[in-house]
Amino acid sequence: MYRAKVVVTLKKSVMDPQGATIRSALESLGYSGVDNVRMGKFLEIDIAETTRDKAEKKLDDMCGRLLSNPVIENYTFEMEELK
Amino acid sequence: MYRAKVVVTLKKSVMDPQGATIRSALESLGYSGVDNVRMGKFLEIDIAETTRDKAEKKLDDMCGRLLSNPVIENYTFEMEELK
Repeated sequence: MYRAKVVVTLKKSVMDPQGATIRSALESLGYSGVDNVRMGKFLEIDIAETTRDKAEKKLDDMCGRLLSNPVIENYTFEMEELK
Repeated sequence: MYRAKVVVTLKKSVMDPQGATIRSALESLGYSGVDNVRMGKFLEIDIAETTRDKAEKKLDDMCGRLLSNPVIENYTFEMEELK
């Protein structure tokens, strides 16, 4: 069993209105010096596979097909074995 | 200038319908062995401060007030200095 932490972020060239809204909300609350806010998704997924290789291949496939939109998003993940 | 990566996750005891939906969508797509999906938020924030200590204090404060809901969510962050 492997536990993966997946981070999905918008590509640099893609506008991030949600991030901009958070930035302006922080400014309204009095936080100065907040320069650049980008919003993304975080997922924790447990995968039952016998080897790390198989689990990583499956997760990579899932990320490309469902968990991210490859046109506008990038994804990274790291994986640890659950004992 | 410091760049922070913030991860906001639901507390273990809080139901995660979004994660459950993703899990069942993955199953429909034919991915077996996916056991537990938890959805969270990821934020990248640039903070202009002179010391890491000040930047971390400011970010911790922002996380508690705006970026997360302390009743149902936990947050973690890491910070790197931008040269």
